[in-house]
Amino acid sequence: MPRFPHTAEEMREVRASVFSRLAHRLASCSGEIYPFHVGDTYLDPAEGCRMEDLATADWPGLHRYAAPRGMPALLEALAARATVRHKVPTAVEDVLVSAGATGGIGAILGAILSPGDEVLILAPFWPLIDGIVRTFRGTPVAVPFLGVAESPESAVEIVERARTARTVALYVSTPNNPTGRVIPPTWLGALARWAELRGLWILSDEVYEDYVYRGEHAYLRSLAPERTFSAHSFSKAWGMAGNRCGYVVGPAAVMEALGKVVVHTFYSTPTASQAAALRALDGRGDAWAASARECYRPVGAAAARRLGIAEPEGSQFLWLDVAPALGEGGLERFLERCADRGLAAAPGPSFGPYPTHVRLCYTAAPPEATARGFERLAAILGR
Amino acid sequence: MPRFPHTAEEMREVRASVFSRLAHRLASCSGEIYPFHVGDTYLDPAEGCRMEDLATADWPGLHRYAAPRGMPALLEALAARATVRHKVPTAVEDVLVSAGATGGIGAILGAILSPGDEVLILAPFWPLIDGIVRTFRGTPVAVPFLGVAESPESAVEIVERARTARTVALYVSTPNNPTGRVIPPTWLGALARWAELRGLWILSDEVYEDYVYRGEHAYLRSLAPERTFSAHSFSKAWGMAGNRCGYVVGPAAVMEALGKVVVHTFYSTPTASQAAALRALDGRGDAWAASARECYRPVGAAAARRLGIAEPEGSQFLWLDVAPALGEGGLERFLERCADRGLAAAPGPSFGPYPTHVRLCYTAAPPEATARGFERLAAILGR
Repeated sequence: MPRFPHTAEEMREVRASVFSRLAHRLASCSGEIYPFHVGDTYLDPAEGCRMEDLATADWPGLHRYAAPRGMPALLEALAARATVRHKVPTAVEDVLVSAGATGGIGAILGAILSPGDEVLILAPFWPLIDGIVRTFRGTPVAVPFLGVAESPESAVEIVERARTARTVALYVSTPNNPTGRVIPPTWLGALARWAELRGLWILSDEVYEDYVYRGEHAYLRSLAPERTFSAHSFSKAWGMAGNRCGYVVGPAAVMEALGKVVVHTFYSTPTASQAAALRALDGRGDAWAASARECYRPVGAAAARRLGIAEPEGSQFLWLDVAPALGEGGLERFLERCADRGLAAAPGPSFGPYPTHVRLCYTAAPPEATARGFERLAAILGR
Repeated sequence: MPRFPHTAEEMREVRASVFSRLAHRLASCSGEIYPFHVGDTYLDPAEGCRMEDLATADWPGLHRYAAPRGMPALLEALAARATVRHKVPTAVEDVLVSAGATGGIGAILGAILSPGDEVLILAPFWPLIDGIVRTFRGTPVAVPFLGVAESPESAVEIVERARTARTVALYVSTPNNPTGRVIPPTWLGALARWAELRGLWILSDEVYEDYVYRGEHAYLRSLAPERTFSAHSFSKAWGMAGNRCGYVVGPAAVMEALGKVVVHTFYSTPTASQAAALRALDGRGDAWAASARECYRPVGAAAARRLGIAEPEGSQFLWLDVAPALGEGGLERFLERCADRGLAAAPGPSFGPYPTHVRLCYTAAPPEATARGFERLAAILGR
């Protein structure tokens, strides 16, 4: 039993930041720093959509509580957006504003999980999903999928093999973090039909929906609106990660349960962050994303070519097996060697059973610096 | 088992907002509106500490992720503040910045609760605490205390009677929401010694620490630093509720576990909100609070006198038994009658087993409007 001075057993399995151990090495570098370990952007948000643009005089109550499920005007704009993007008629009752996609996915899992319920997570996966399932006392089940599935049929075989009597949901991230892959629409269609057959919820993490360079992004909610939660974020889309504003679209009948989790974990999404999102929804956000996408595309492609791997299809990451470069000390020692050269990379085990991979974000530093960082990495790898 | 289309049984017990049912009645009022149901302030934050004062040029990375446990400069300022206020030497490792006290208390409970663990909650209580315990799959146990305990000895008797083998923590809110009472230091000392004897964690909700009008606020962390989590907020203190920024101070050994919950529920406290708090920590916040306190004090006292109840000792609320005014339809009908006259009140059952009470916030509207609202309430009550 967790009792003073102990904490709950359930949280011991959750990873703390693996990066803090490397931070001091990076900090002691004298040269340029390449922060490829985080998923972020070096770009500031669109002009007019920054904190300094939000005058208290124009926004009465800017520093007071917002409605926990979202400002009415923002909910309306997001319902209209989801109607167009998902091609599903969407009402404000289907939408929940959240503290980033993290807060939104927490709200979903907090609403649907009882202790011990299992969530199938297509791997490699966004590192926080494993811990969010555990935080709400569920059991994450990593299902190696990207790079394994080869067709709609094999996609279904893979998830069906992992399913048990305790499985309640399937988590999908596409465009994928960390692999940069875009899961083909036909595969998503097969997974949606399988979830329907098995009576499962679907969590569709689409925070990189605007960052597709090749292939086509399909919305799972278009395919199974009755059971799909779409998680979106302005963090990645519009360079507002620090604002902590995202949203979830899902079946109205259960959105009140998600709202309860929001109220009891962070109460409401920051009012100014919602106001900034609302301003950006007038077209400035989408214009920013279109420009950022064209900026990111050649950077990711060039980095991939330099490392001799396939160019990314989407998202803001490269996923790289560094097994040939690992000597004694394995991945940990490799990451230390990188950090000593100013280069931070995220370790494969944060993304599932990948002891020799690293994830590299090519959008967290300006393009020229990023190119120099990948040159340095190629040298470390002997490529 | 929670399975599509159902949600988790654990969340069904959590109250959704009771206010939404009354909102349309309030909205259809033609006259002045008295929003006494929320805990908020009508005042804007200190000048220089608003969103419009945060220029991206001065704050590089203002819209990018902050460190999940808090910006280093903010952590340092808060550790120094806790050292002085709690009279306990406090390091940055003892501090966690959170999405308001709500996010901080969620981080505490997420870190210490296993399913079924019980938390003793001194009642009447802050309405969210019950649901936060449930959100992290624990069991809240309401312990009627304020208005019942009469001495340090009876305080201990009351909590000891409620303790079971599953009890892991005691939750205390003082200055108290909703009663406006300040729990005497000698009672807190007795509770701290009891928690030590019984091996329990202590959650001390001190978001109204700056709003004491009579009596003395004692910090439980001063009395039992090894087992006490102090939850603080800039929401109430400095009129920044919409920013969602607060902090927790507790034993360094377990703060990493709290940090994991933060990362997996909202990732980090909004960067701009942390920057605003840091600016206000230069003295402007405390000056604001001193001025707000002198503004609130006579408003609360006058409202209490008008209703014929004791003047508040602290916080921003009056707690009122309206039993004599309840006719057929009980409290629900009474709240509807109030709403029809533009007056919103929070229902007693949100605060524990109080079927005939209401909570009234006297700081959410300007003093003159508040006085008119209480005049109207007195008329409804026939006082």
